[in-house]
Amino acid sequence: MHRSIATVSLSGTLREKLNAIAAAGFDGFELFEADFINFSGSASELGRIAADLGLSIDLYQPFRDFEAMPEAQFRRSLDRAERKFDLMQAMGASLMLCCSNTSPLVKDDPALAAEQLHALAERAARRGLRVGYEALAWGRATSLYSQAWEIVRRADHPSLGLILDSFHTLSLKDDPAGIAQIPGEKIFFVQMADAPLMAMDVLQWARHHRSFPGQGDFDVVGFFAQALRAGYRGPLSLEIFNDVFRETPNRRTAVDAMRSLLWLESQVRERLAAAEEPRGRLPAPTVELCEPPPAPQLGGMGFIEFAADEAAAQALGQRLQQLGFARIGRHRSKAVTLYRQGQVHFIVNAQPDSFARQRFELHGTSVCALGLLAQDPEGAAARATAMCSQRHDSPRGPGESALPAIVAPGGNLIHFLPQSPDIESLLRADFVFDEPATGCEGHGLLSVDHVALGLAVDQLDTWVLFSRAVLGLEPGESLELADPFGLVRNRGLSNAERTVRLVLNASVSQRTQTARTLSRTGGGAVHHIALRCEDIFATVQRMRDAGVGFVPISGNYYDDLPTRMDLAPEFVARLRAAGVLFDRSAEGDYLHIYTQSLEEGLFFEVVQRIGDYDAYGAANAPARLAAQALQHP
Amino acid sequence: MHRSIATVSLSGTLREKLNAIAAAGFDGFELFEADFINFSGSASELGRIAADLGLSIDLYQPFRDFEAMPEAQFRRSLDRAERKFDLMQAMGASLMLCCSNTSPLVKDDPALAAEQLHALAERAARRGLRVGYEALAWGRATSLYSQAWEIVRRADHPSLGLILDSFHTLSLKDDPAGIAQIPGEKIFFVQMADAPLMAMDVLQWARHHRSFPGQGDFDVVGFFAQALRAGYRGPLSLEIFNDVFRETPNRRTAVDAMRSLLWLESQVRERLAAAEEPRGRLPAPTVELCEPPPAPQLGGMGFIEFAADEAAAQALGQRLQQLGFARIGRHRSKAVTLYRQGQVHFIVNAQPDSFARQRFELHGTSVCALGLLAQDPEGAAARATAMCSQRHDSPRGPGESALPAIVAPGGNLIHFLPQSPDIESLLRADFVFDEPATGCEGHGLLSVDHVALGLAVDQLDTWVLFSRAVLGLEPGESLELADPFGLVRNRGLSNAERTVRLVLNASVSQRTQTARTLSRTGGGAVHHIALRCEDIFATVQRMRDAGVGFVPISGNYYDDLPTRMDLAPEFVARLRAAGVLFDRSAEGDYLHIYTQSLEEGLFFEVVQRIGDYDAYGAANAPARLAAQALQHP
Repeated sequence: MHRSIATVSLSGTLREKLNAIAAAGFDGFELFEADFINFSGSASELGRIAADLGLSIDLYQPFRDFEAMPEAQFRRSLDRAERKFDLMQAMGASLMLCCSNTSPLVKDDPALAAEQLHALAERAARRGLRVGYEALAWGRATSLYSQAWEIVRRADHPSLGLILDSFHTLSLKDDPAGIAQIPGEKIFFVQMADAPLMAMDVLQWARHHRSFPGQGDFDVVGFFAQALRAGYRGPLSLEIFNDVFRETPNRRTAVDAMRSLLWLESQVRERLAAAEEPRGRLPAPTVELCEPPPAPQLGGMGFIEFAADEAAAQALGQRLQQLGFARIGRHRSKAVTLYRQGQVHFIVNAQPDSFARQRFELHGTSVCALGLLAQDPEGAAARATAMCSQRHDSPRGPGESALPAIVAPGGNLIHFLPQSPDIESLLRADFVFDEPATGCEGHGLLSVDHVALGLAVDQLDTWVLFSRAVLGLEPGESLELADPFGLVRNRGLSNAERTVRLVLNASVSQRTQTARTLSRTGGGAVHHIALRCEDIFATVQRMRDAGVGFVPISGNYYDDLPTRMDLAPEFVARLRAAGVLFDRSAEGDYLHIYTQSLEEGLFFEVVQRIGDYDAYGAANAPARLAAQALQHP
Repeated sequence: MHRSIATVSLSGTLREKLNAIAAAGFDGFELFEADFINFSGSASELGRIAADLGLSIDLYQPFRDFEAMPEAQFRRSLDRAERKFDLMQAMGASLMLCCSNTSPLVKDDPALAAEQLHALAERAARRGLRVGYEALAWGRATSLYSQAWEIVRRADHPSLGLILDSFHTLSLKDDPAGIAQIPGEKIFFVQMADAPLMAMDVLQWARHHRSFPGQGDFDVVGFFAQALRAGYRGPLSLEIFNDVFRETPNRRTAVDAMRSLLWLESQVRERLAAAEEPRGRLPAPTVELCEPPPAPQLGGMGFIEFAADEAAAQALGQRLQQLGFARIGRHRSKAVTLYRQGQVHFIVNAQPDSFARQRFELHGTSVCALGLLAQDPEGAAARATAMCSQRHDSPRGPGESALPAIVAPGGNLIHFLPQSPDIESLLRADFVFDEPATGCEGHGLLSVDHVALGLAVDQLDTWVLFSRAVLGLEPGESLELADPFGLVRNRGLSNAERTVRLVLNASVSQRTQTARTLSRTGGGAVHHIALRCEDIFATVQRMRDAGVGFVPISGNYYDDLPTRMDLAPEFVARLRAAGVLFDRSAEGDYLHIYTQSLEEGLFFEVVQRIGDYDAYGAANAPARLAAQALQHP
């Protein structure tokens, strides 16, 4: 697959964009005209820069308001096209995108459109150039790919073809199935964009809120599959207008972009493989699609590692023991301590000169690594590197376990752990276990329910894609939580078995609790860890007895609860007495409570799931955020 | 007028919100239920806090999904209402807002709705409470005020009335004229919200993008006039869901809110006064509307004052002389220098211990004051203080001019200057003029065309309202400019005579040129001053000869110009040679060029207007922003 991206998808000057595009491994790019107009060099200089970077200029775009116009405008537009052709030849671009007309002067006359596009293609052909015609979702006369194809077919010129853009088709809820019937060689270019489902004007949606494949809600896999079924063999490109990407450092965006294409290709490969055989009516695609190792089968959270120094490790250890964790061992060669309760293993790493210490210096007491149980740890790491993540295995002492690790967005590590032998046997390789363990017998915590991350708003889509493409998690609903000082976007991700759950919280405002924690602990930081129990009232009581403080919830919350849900007064009284929050879905109930924060903002949640409740109590987040705002003004 | 505001309009905890509401001079507030649920005190404690602050609790809201429901739901909702009535009595609120039903269970049956609302009102009446019914724009069966009124009329209960909200009516483009026919005493409450015109789902629009009256595009004045014509005498309240207000410091938002109500009242008073007499069919409103001094008649920019210290003053003076300004005088008693070219007067203030020096310490070389010519300077200042602006007259020496001044949002000063005697005579009172003046005869600059401000995104609406309510300017179109590192929102404001023009630039991103200048010079800072000439080619040539550097524009810009507009090749060549940008509207042409920035980011624009061109060349801003990004990476 020849992989390409439009320059409008990235922030920066044109030169910086091209550097980032080349560094992320793209083969070429679409030149967005405004980027060229404001570029400080000439067309031929741009051609040289692209060549030096090993990038082809796959498309010059957009050429607007051309077809089906009155004669005078048509003539002027042909002159205009010649000027663009001059530039294309000087820079070495051979394909121009002509998008469907939005001018009030356009005639709804496919025959005229075809005739004029034929004339344009003829001019292009004289110079060895080609023209691709694309239906804009808001085109006046042509808004569907089927209409654009009808015009291209009618124009019948070898230098005129169709350009497809998933956004324009999927935003209108048009059916992409007809694409498979178009001759592949007449599709000159395919642009892929995803987007969140939004009830807004399609032009505004298109100009501000597109996202990379895998970050939105469109069936981009199905769309691209249709183009491959048609026999399309050209570039696979991304054209993303997104307000956040406009300001995100372009190197990071370019890596996200490449990851999204690789994910898309691998998904399409699977989709085609699953669909073709039974139907047996379509040839396998003739292009080479990325074939990474499969997404990992995750089996749960094996451990969570905290960064500390000696003093912080001691303070954290005391907090963990209050929560019912027992200190069960020390690392054979490093200043690292192991705590356990139920199946939850926490590692507190205070080793000088370690990766953890670097994180501690940056962020204070914080989570610096997650250990995920995987059916095939090496395969999981190989999948990650195939999906643009960096490998980062830790140095280890003699006899210690070799755990493949990768760098997550924001810089924390994710280790992949084997599911057999069990986690305790695995840890015994590295840790000397205390016999007996120090500390209490636990307060009833059983396992890690979810890990919640605090993100800057420009990291949210990066994490959604990373979680899908690298970890094989699937995103849930996107929600908005009201903090007293602004909105927080919230999205949960989990694997199919629900053994690994991540919750992403991205603060739109700079002043929310989430944002303030973020400013202390850096981007991509864990802001809380939710731990599961089977009897939250008993667990909370034991914790309170041990001195654990919880975020106080207003009595008004409990007065309001029975006006929203049908709950027995005794049960509400029990929630109130314990300070426990309650949520209910069609599938089940969720009982939860938040501990007071550590100095750097990290806190714990204790949760009990009843039935098949599958969310995270987002309706109660404002109660927590308001209470935290009172405590940490 | 009893002035009120909904707690949801402000950021912060409930206690902080109430403090800000009281400090801004409101009489009462609407309690948004979520604020109460997360409030740390009880209902009676809230009542005491409100009473201590001198605030009445004018409305408890919202009560949802009540009317026209099946019997079982209806019964449950009555119980739910009793719990709310308990709270209202405990806190001392006498009116509850019941908004139209959005539940899928609702029946489209106005008779049933009336019957059930009658029952609700009867329950309320037993406790001395009242219920107001409001049509939500997205209500399932009831979405128009006329439908809601029909139900209230049918229910015919003295404790049931109508609540009007301008957003719900104006967002649906419904005609508010019918409001005048409703008996005033049956309108229990009026909520006012403005909004920018947006093509999006009305629920999303309503929840995220409302604004204070005067900040948006709705005819809020006409709406409120209808309520007064109906004889409405209740509170005038604001209910604004706005993502930016959610994070803006609440004291600032509360002042904006009060300013918007005062502006609205004064506009409505004028509208009614102008409309009633000729028609003669409606009584004057029976409520007392704010009657501030009239908006000022401005006559131009008398002077612009820069903050500096001695060294900075010298450096700036040299830059001004390069631009063709002559040093024409020194202040009688202060380290302040006066420069002039055409009708442009620049004051460079390096006086220690002055207001200007405070601004310099904060922001470096920057504009610290504007001197606006006004027909009635004292009246203009009185208008400003009536519209919630602070007065800030400068200390003056013997014989020096007394110029009334006010503080603009962000902290700079605006002086109001008399139009007669002329500005030079006025300045001669304070300055000793050099005879002859030092410096050249000028490069052809004639007057200040506009002053462009760089704002944080949360200051944009504040400035729009300040400019309208205090300065009497009217806003133009809201535009978005593409910087290589994010979007900048842009809006021009001017008086009817176009002698005073302000251009507001608010960076959505933290990384644009605008945002970076802002981080150096503080919010509300002037980021450039546009100066007008009559022959830009001659002026630019003389400036270049004097060593002025301009922002370089890409040659590609000039290649592209003739493909967009019908321009003679010789003219384009002339623009290219001079480095001048070009824009054209139906009314005329705009030629302009930007100087290199001073160290702190401030720069100048030279402009020539031809015909009745009435904008600011926004189409060329990306060319400037891209060039500046190359120069100041």
